[in-house]
Amino acid sequence: MSEYTGYEGKSLEFLKTNKISISDSVKILADITYSGIIMPRYEHSDDKHIVLKLKSGYNIGLEISKIEKIEKNETSEKIVEKIEKIEKNEKLPKILLLSTGGTIASKIDYRTGAVTPVLTAEELNSSVPELAKIANIDTKVLFSEYSENIMPEHWLKIAQTVNEYLNSDYTGIIIAHGTDTMHYTSAYLSFSLAGFQIPIALVGSQRSSDRASSDAALNLIGAVKFLTECKTNGIYIAMHQDENDETVACHIGTRVRKNHTSKRGAFQTVGKDPAFLIVNNEIYNNMKDSFFTINEYTPKIKINEKVALVKYYPGYDPIMLKNIIDSGYKAIIFEGTGLGHIGETMYPMVKMANEKDIFMGMTSQCIDGRVRMTVYESGRDLLDLGIIALENMIPEIALVKAMWATGNTENREEIKEIMLNKIASEFST
Amino acid sequence: MSEYTGYEGKSLEFLKTNKISISDSVKILADITYSGIIMPRYEHSDDKHIVLKLKSGYNIGLEISKIEKIEKNETSEKIVEKIEKIEKNEKLPKILLLSTGGTIASKIDYRTGAVTPVLTAEELNSSVPELAKIANIDTKVLFSEYSENIMPEHWLKIAQTVNEYLNSDYTGIIIAHGTDTMHYTSAYLSFSLAGFQIPIALVGSQRSSDRASSDAALNLIGAVKFLTECKTNGIYIAMHQDENDETVACHIGTRVRKNHTSKRGAFQTVGKDPAFLIVNNEIYNNMKDSFFTINEYTPKIKINEKVALVKYYPGYDPIMLKNIIDSGYKAIIFEGTGLGHIGETMYPMVKMANEKDIFMGMTSQCIDGRVRMTVYESGRDLLDLGIIALENMIPEIALVKAMWATGNTENREEIKEIMLNKIASEFST
Repeated sequence: MSEYTGYEGKSLEFLKTNKISISDSVKILADITYSGIIMPRYEHSDDKHIVLKLKSGYNIGLEISKIEKIEKNETSEKIVEKIEKIEKNEKLPKILLLSTGGTIASKIDYRTGAVTPVLTAEELNSSVPELAKIANIDTKVLFSEYSENIMPEHWLKIAQTVNEYLNSDYTGIIIAHGTDTMHYTSAYLSFSLAGFQIPIALVGSQRSSDRASSDAALNLIGAVKFLTECKTNGIYIAMHQDENDETVACHIGTRVRKNHTSKRGAFQTVGKDPAFLIVNNEIYNNMKDSFFTINEYTPKIKINEKVALVKYYPGYDPIMLKNIIDSGYKAIIFEGTGLGHIGETMYPMVKMANEKDIFMGMTSQCIDGRVRMTVYESGRDLLDLGIIALENMIPEIALVKAMWATGNTENREEIKEIMLNKIASEFST
Repeated sequence: MSEYTGYEGKSLEFLKTNKISISDSVKILADITYSGIIMPRYEHSDDKHIVLKLKSGYNIGLEISKIEKIEKNETSEKIVEKIEKIEKNEKLPKILLLSTGGTIASKIDYRTGAVTPVLTAEELNSSVPELAKIANIDTKVLFSEYSENIMPEHWLKIAQTVNEYLNSDYTGIIIAHGTDTMHYTSAYLSFSLAGFQIPIALVGSQRSSDRASSDAALNLIGAVKFLTECKTNGIYIAMHQDENDETVACHIGTRVRKNHTSKRGAFQTVGKDPAFLIVNNEIYNNMKDSFFTINEYTPKIKINEKVALVKYYPGYDPIMLKNIIDSGYKAIIFEGTGLGHIGETMYPMVKMANEKDIFMGMTSQCIDGRVRMTVYESGRDLLDLGIIALENMIPEIALVKAMWATGNTENREEIKEIMLNKIASEFST
């Protein structure tokens, strides 16, 4: 790292003119007075800002045109940032880190103040030097997308890449991923890579890694510990258990949801404790059954996106269901109410979908608990109309499974069989 | 009650032939041997079954054609069921009980084995004799619907009926309601009856009232205690707090969800403790703010059903959004991911909706936590496209509020103002 890494044009000129370089402790007079350390910038930054690390640990961007005065602090102690090349220790287990984007691979854009996905897996790795002590991490960038932009085509790419490492000597695989749709991706991998023997952990962070409150480091360290010591297989999501910086929870990739918009402990296993907890150096195992029902690896990396998730609510217009039917959908997952109900107003369109041989599965918007459609006459009516009760599958996971199932077969009976056949811990019986 | 209440045709003949009447303790030989007490049947039952209360407290229906032998038990003690006319005590507070259907007003249909809604409010009241000791209950049946069949038109009818009791001497109003969509109804009442001074509790049950494990009685008793002693206003949902038969939780009607398909403690206040807990005879108050922002009663019992709740997921086909736009919808509530995101593939249709002056509000499928659309550039893009961040409003509640708002005005700016104006504790700031 040079004295001016990442600075160019006007901001570089500004620093040079004022005889200030990276790592200098400075005082800046702008709208208010700031005190902190000049930070390097990442590539392709604009040239209108300089970045200051405050004592609080937060980094802020300051527009140079608004800076009235900048001077070195009296102490003027030069704080050297060490971003050294990681030395590999051949005795340690090997972990593959695939980066797909998201906050864990993001930094704040000081131009807009918003967070943008730009860190490479290499940068991510080097930003958590503790990792080098427990494993040798190889990194690979698959793409760089916010998770709300991760589409089924990205799931395919991740699955295909993981599949290539089937016979590798990696002890585990980490997938750095945005948190928003991480559980959809983990579900797809669970079904498409059923029986894959190397454990996989999807890891994200709720706060970007250049923020003091970032959860990226703990989540990564927890995931690496888990993968190197768990002695099991399966696809998990490894994230903070709660607001404390002590525990990482590993959730079964088909039984997990993001249940809070911003908390670090946003992910929860539905209706149960997480499969594994990593507390400091200890791993606690709550898994009673094996992750996959089958032991043999039978990759089926296929998908059909013509599957709709229909969340029912009072006043839902059945015409919207008709639109889905008319658009050639192969399967519909209802997110019904309670034990698995939708209003009578929906029945004619359900009947039509049934006649068109569209697979229909029922889940509940309660999220927790099992659908049971034999309790009320309305549930029985829906069973008669061809809807299949999907046990206690989480709606989002049932959607992904149906996309995968219809990718493998368009035969309704076979889809039904796949949906009711437990493959990767997606429901309990 | 006569010796044969509810029995007719073949089942009546069967009882008479065997010299058995209601309240007799009998032994029945069919597929297995049953022992229990002959129960009365409700009106309009079929004539193919008799109903037996087992020692476990459960009632079962037995098909008479399959009964090989029926005889009185040797003890043959006649157990007299007392369903007396409730005596009113004028010193007690008055409560109005409006029945709309649901499990709380249901019984098992012994023909199909499923639960059907048939109990009247009067029957419900008389089935919980404890109520008469704490309040005088007047009952009125509004309709009898499973809650998945409760539509916005039913919300209007409930609100209009409640409004008629504005100047009554009722201390509180109970609305017996199916649990599946109870929180949608409570939300509608909260907005349309803003400022209503008599407290209202929606009460349901997860197990029908003729089952031993029914939660109907505790929920009703808890609700009556709450209404007679809470000294506040607002619309609440009163249900079991957990699996114990000790605590009823009163949830704010705009901050509550059914989060489990079958547990008795299925309802939860999102992200907080319930507003009130009723433990035996004690009431614990966790309310910090008043329920309504305004004190003046300003009923606006209006609705526009042209509002869609769009749950985003990877692979969501933007054409479905186009269908909504083309169908003349006035508002769209997105159930986005994380802090309030939807994929870039949606942007062209969002732009179209914006140009067509459709109100668009953002909530999160995380359910808990606040949407914050300024953190990531994707959120900022969506704000630029005209989507409004709806704080920490629960998606289902935001949907109901938008239906109500668009019922009051079709002016987008006014809808926006209404949506962001806290009315009935629907979000926190």
